[in-house]
Amino acid sequence: MIDVKGWAAQDAKSPLKPIRFQRQDPGPKEVHIQVLFCGVCHSDIHQVKDEWGNTIYPCLPGHEIVGRVIRTGAQVTKARPGDLVGVGCMIDSCRQCEPCRAGEENYCEGPNSWLATYNGPMVPAAKAGKNTYGRDNTYGGYSTDLVVTEDFLLRIPAGIEPAKAAPILCAGVTTFSPLKHWRVKAGDHIAIIGFGGLGDMALKLAKALGAHVTVFTTSQDKIDSARAIGADDAVLETDKDALARFTARFDFMLSTVPQKHDLNPFVPMLKRDATLVAVGALEPMAEINHMQVAAHRRRIAGSLIGSLAETQEVLDFCAAHQITPDIELIPIARINEAYEHVESGDVRYRYVIDMESLRAAA
Amino acid sequence: MIDVKGWAAQDAKSPLKPIRFQRQDPGPKEVHIQVLFCGVCHSDIHQVKDEWGNTIYPCLPGHEIVGRVIRTGAQVTKARPGDLVGVGCMIDSCRQCEPCRAGEENYCEGPNSWLATYNGPMVPAAKAGKNTYGRDNTYGGYSTDLVVTEDFLLRIPAGIEPAKAAPILCAGVTTFSPLKHWRVKAGDHIAIIGFGGLGDMALKLAKALGAHVTVFTTSQDKIDSARAIGADDAVLETDKDALARFTARFDFMLSTVPQKHDLNPFVPMLKRDATLVAVGALEPMAEINHMQVAAHRRRIAGSLIGSLAETQEVLDFCAAHQITPDIELIPIARINEAYEHVESGDVRYRYVIDMESLRAAA
Repeated sequence: MIDVKGWAAQDAKSPLKPIRFQRQDPGPKEVHIQVLFCGVCHSDIHQVKDEWGNTIYPCLPGHEIVGRVIRTGAQVTKARPGDLVGVGCMIDSCRQCEPCRAGEENYCEGPNSWLATYNGPMVPAAKAGKNTYGRDNTYGGYSTDLVVTEDFLLRIPAGIEPAKAAPILCAGVTTFSPLKHWRVKAGDHIAIIGFGGLGDMALKLAKALGAHVTVFTTSQDKIDSARAIGADDAVLETDKDALARFTARFDFMLSTVPQKHDLNPFVPMLKRDATLVAVGALEPMAEINHMQVAAHRRRIAGSLIGSLAETQEVLDFCAAHQITPDIELIPIARINEAYEHVESGDVRYRYVIDMESLRAAA
Repeated sequence: MIDVKGWAAQDAKSPLKPIRFQRQDPGPKEVHIQVLFCGVCHSDIHQVKDEWGNTIYPCLPGHEIVGRVIRTGAQVTKARPGDLVGVGCMIDSCRQCEPCRAGEENYCEGPNSWLATYNGPMVPAAKAGKNTYGRDNTYGGYSTDLVVTEDFLLRIPAGIEPAKAAPILCAGVTTFSPLKHWRVKAGDHIAIIGFGGLGDMALKLAKALGAHVTVFTTSQDKIDSARAIGADDAVLETDKDALARFTARFDFMLSTVPQKHDLNPFVPMLKRDATLVAVGALEPMAEINHMQVAAHRRRIAGSLIGSLAETQEVLDFCAAHQITPDIELIPIARINEAYEHVESGDVRYRYVIDMESLRAAA
């Protein structure tokens, strides 16, 4: 057994606090990773506060994990001690359903769906009637050590700072996957709604794909920074006159807003047959005026993180194009304060926890 | 000028009543049509009662029109006196925008969008700032005579009873267009939600395309009739256990429900990457749980009637496959009573007005 230190919530109302627990030693096909960095995703906060109504406590979040392999099981072939690796939102899937066989584990249709890095599996045994993975609750990356099957490891390419690679594992792939799936290409006019950790990555990735990018934000002070990061245009969502300029303008729109929001101001901006994909919110969306959808055969869609292959692809894409998220490195002791800033949108643009601060703690 | 008899509403609260008015004589490229039959669409009721908030009074509905050409302008080449013709939801469009040039007039992006057969244009001059068509309010097919440009005429193929051709012009093309656009094909599993005038046509068209069709209805007594018409399965929407059987089952779903409704029970029935298209409702839809959309990269879309080319195609398709709507022929004097039955879903499945009853009236 491995003695592990982490930070977890014991209930929906309390802040995260230090916790000590044990992880199993790695099995034949598993690796033991020393966690170096872990990004802070808005989902972590939703889960900790039980805002999706499915949290199992203790809840130990973290799914943007960069670490160093320190031990490997006897049959491991894909990693060696010393390797710099990443772990994203998934640590396993059923491997048998059609999506899994097609390499789209993030849409796993197995009885428990995919095994989330924390608070997993996605469909708990109580609901599915069976437990494919033998676990009712997984503990994530806000911890010193992780044990994971080699099949769900990502390679961190040389040329990306390890701390900056962390947000690519969720914020990066969550935005990259729909950009690729809906074939965003050079010259397309696209919109990014919401400019936080996902918006920052979406903008950089879309620009690297050659798109003309307009950012919509609710923060006046993000207008300038979005332009500085590369946006061709940046618009305050509350400026109705400005919004009217964009009727039927976009080939593709990506909403990264991490909570229920009103898409009605944006739907008319879609060209005929174009799609608005919301990736940030996983709750009921405000009522959508269907006249605006039908009038130009528009589409509203969702997309959930990305596959293992897409995650590796976006890591490599970021290395090749020298794309990294804008991050603020924090010690674990500042995590509760960081949550407050994330909730108020007051972060530029992703907090990453330096896990050395946890290892060094008493 | 042509003296015309019709039935119209003078305000949102009153029943339809007889009205006399004049239409312009046909211009060089227009034809004068004696209306023989006109279908009754749920949209007629929404419009008459100002349920979309955009009705101009008097409101004289009717956009499923079958008639006989009795006079043609000097330059008309596409129709001759005696021809049996159809007029659907549109009687003109801007003809210059990209969708119009692409033959998708129903998505016209001109300043006034397309010219609706009644209560047109789609975007009134007061909102658009200009009047492309020189009209603020058009009068539809609940009338003895119509004058329309030859370019927006449909040919009624031999082999379809004229009265039964009428509903194809809206109910038919509105369901045919998305079935074709989303490439429904032999062997696909598709669902039709709502089983009224559109549902009846959707079922027949989808079966002729070779699909396996499940109908969802709120009426117990429509279960048997849906099966009799050809449904492979028919399910009561309120039977939650039955609904659970259909998780991730369908390649395509078509909602024909003509008002705001809750799509949440249906979204989980879509396969990964599959689309639910709502064609019946043009108002805000109930909040949709985006987790169910994102979890399998599902899509919700809209579709608005169909193009001229699609309307001709569906007429010809119906003739070739001997598909006709189930109709109930009524005299114009029963129109207000018919509206009550349509609103309560108590019609099998489309009322068609025999316009001879209006011509014969005092």
